[in-house]
Amino acid sequence: MVRLAGVLRTFVPLFDRVLVERLAAETKTKGGIMIPEKSLGKVLHATVVSTGPGSRTSDGTVVPCSVVAGDKVLLPEYGGTKVEMDDKEYFIFRDGDILGKFTS
Amino acid sequence: MVRLAGVLRTFVPLFDRVLVERLAAETKTKGGIMIPEKSLGKVLHATVVSTGPGSRTSDGTVVPCSVVAGDKVLLPEYGGTKVEMDDKEYFIFRDGDILGKFTS
Amino acid sequence: MVRLAGVLRTFVPLFDRVLVERLAAETKTKGGIMIPEKSLGKVLHATVVSTGPGSRTSDGTVVPCSVVAGDKVLLPEYGGTKVEMDDKEYFIFRDGDILGKFTS
Amino acid sequence: MVRLAGVLRTFVPLFDRVLVERLAAETKTKGGIMIPEKSLGKVLHATVVSTGPGSRTSDGTVVPCSVVAGDKVLLPEYGGTKVEMDDKEYFIFRDGDILGKFTS
Amino acid sequence: MVRLAGVLRTFVPLFDRVLVERLAAETKTKGGIMIPEKSLGKVLHATVVSTGPGSRTSDGTVVPCSVVAGDKVLLPEYGGTKVEMDDKEYFIFRDGDILGKFTS
Amino acid sequence: MVRLAGVLRTFVPLFDRVLVERLAAETKTKGGIMIPEKSLGKVLHATVVSTGPGSRTSDGTVVPCSVVAGDKVLLPEYGGTKVEMDDKEYFIFRDGDILGKFTS
Amino acid sequence: MVRLAGVLRTFVPLFDRVLVERLAAETKTKGGIMIPEKSLGKVLHATVVSTGPGSRTSDGTVVPCSVVAGDKVLLPEYGGTKVEMDDKEYFIFRDGDILGKFTS
Repeated sequence: MVRLAGVLRTFVPLFDRVLVERLAAETKTKGGIMIPEKSLGKVLHATVVSTGPGSRTSDGTVVPCSVVAGDKVLLPEYGGTKVEMDDKEYFIFRDGDILGKFTS
Repeated sequence: MVRLAGVLRTFVPLFDRVLVERLAAETKTKGGIMIPEKSLGKVLHATVVSTGPGSRTSDGTVVPCSVVAGDKVLLPEYGGTKVEMDDKEYFIFRDGDILGKFTS
Repeated sequence: MVRLAGVLRTFVPLFDRVLVERLAAETKTKGGIMIPEKSLGKVLHATVVSTGPGSRTSDGTVVPCSVVAGDKVLLPEYGGTKVEMDDKEYFIFRDGDILGKFTS
Repeated sequence: MVRLAGVLRTFVPLFDRVLVERLAAETKTKGGIMIPEKSLGKVLHATVVSTGPGSRTSDGTVVPCSVVAGDKVLLPEYGGTKVEMDDKEYFIFRDGDILGKFTS
Repeated sequence: MVRLAGVLRTFVPLFDRVLVERLAAETKTKGGIMIPEKSLGKVLHATVVSTGPGSRTSDGTVVPCSVVAGDKVLLPEYGGTKVEMDDKEYFIFRDGDILGKFTS
Repeated sequence: MVRLAGVLRTFVPLFDRVLVERLAAETKTKGGIMIPEKSLGKVLHATVVSTGPGSRTSDGTVVPCSVVAGDKVLLPEYGGTKVEMDDKEYFIFRDGDILGKFTS
Repeated sequence: MVRLAGVLRTFVPLFDRVLVERLAAETKTKGGIMIPEKSLGKVLHATVVSTGPGSRTSDGTVVPCSVVAGDKVLLPEYGGTKVEMDDKEYFIFRDGDILGKFTS
């Protein structure tokens, strides 16, 4: 379970939107060498913070999101909406735009 | 409950439209320093003033909006229609364009 | 009830079209000063003159327009088709493009 | 009832198409002054000559056109296909593009 | 009934496609004067040679084409695919793009 | 029945895709004169090699392709995806893009 | 059955996405001559690593992907999303974009 504090705890995405937090990029190589920032790859791994109730089919039924809070997911390189809460950066993606999740 | 006066009280959005009022931007830092206007971020937080009856599925059923008057919501950076009532500025968004709401 | 005369009385919009008459713009300030025309805001308030039978869902059922003759409505800034009848200017909007109505 | 002769009498529009004949533009003012052609407004009034069987809903049912032969209609400023029959000019519009009709 | 020979006789359009043969343009005026080719209007009249089984509604039912072999039809000015069979030029149109037919 | 060898024999198109082999262009006139390559018309005739299971209607039913292996078909001038198998060139078209077939 | 290790083993594509690994390009001719890299064709053959649960029809039913892990598939020349896992390069395609599969 993900424990949320502050504004973040009260935020509920609407429809099939998913709020995610990107994982911090590794800034050192395995051998301990600092990686200059411009060499850092795009961080496409993220953790789901919260999700909306889901999308609606054409007859009005709600289909829950395919991810839940706490899921580790793979994001597409582009897309998503940056939002700031409690002075931290989060992203909102549509459920259907998330590429996959990592099971454990 | 939100108490409305003047023209605003008589206005009913149509379909899945939502009338919102943006929250005032903080113009001072927590320490009390004035923030010059160009440094002020976009105000994406708003309060729902009133909503339409909802959208219609392909078979004609009305699906109520996912927010209600009084809800604190997070707006997308772009979009929405600026309208003026009683010399004040409001915005109309489609229900499906609102990113999320803050529960209390 | 709106009383119509001349050609206007015989005109019936088709489908979900709505014929509206824009309200005259205020050309004086509350204090009585004339407002030069270029300072006049766009007139987005209008009265519904007549409406079509409504739109059709995918299974052929007709859904009546959400406004009726006599309703005061808020128009979007762009869109609509200007038509002239009895030497007066009217506008036709699709029901779904009208932003909201004012109840009394 | 509209009496048609020649090729026109044998022509049946397909689907929800409507064959119309634009009304002649008034070339004199009410006082009898000739109006130079470039001052003549676009003729948006027309008479329905014939109509197709109608459009088809997604389940295959045919919905008849909303106008019938003889109806006086208001055309949009743009659109329509010019066709010539018996050396006269007619226009074909989709039923859904006709703005409204004049009842008598 | 249209009698077809050669390759043409074996060709069956797929879906709601219609194979048509444009009528020869009149190259003389009624008085017998030759019309120079550049003055010849576009030939929009054609005869249906063969048709596909029809289009499919969203639930999979096939709706037959609205024209049959032998029908005289009115073509839109643009569109259609030119095909050559037995050294002669034919055109393929979607059933829904044909403007109308001439009954006799 | 079409007898396939090598990789080609194991290939199954997905959905409503159709694998075709264009017929060789005639490189001599009927009288035996060689036609220079640039004068050769586009080869729009092809033989169906294999087809996918078909397209799916909105309720999930599979509708088989309208052509089968061995059919002689007429291709549109543009479109299709070139693929190479066993050092030979084939093309993949969507079933709905094939113009027609030749029955024998 | 495909045996996966590391991060790859825990990755599940969402919806109708398919994770594939492109086959290594042949870098020698059959006779053993090295092919310079710029002469190497695009590698359009790939092996399916894992698939999502499938796409959803308009009434909410899930339709499984048309390929399964281990399938040899033919990719379109363009499209797909490159992802890196365990320092190796993989691609994600929508099930509907894969051209065909090779049965054995």
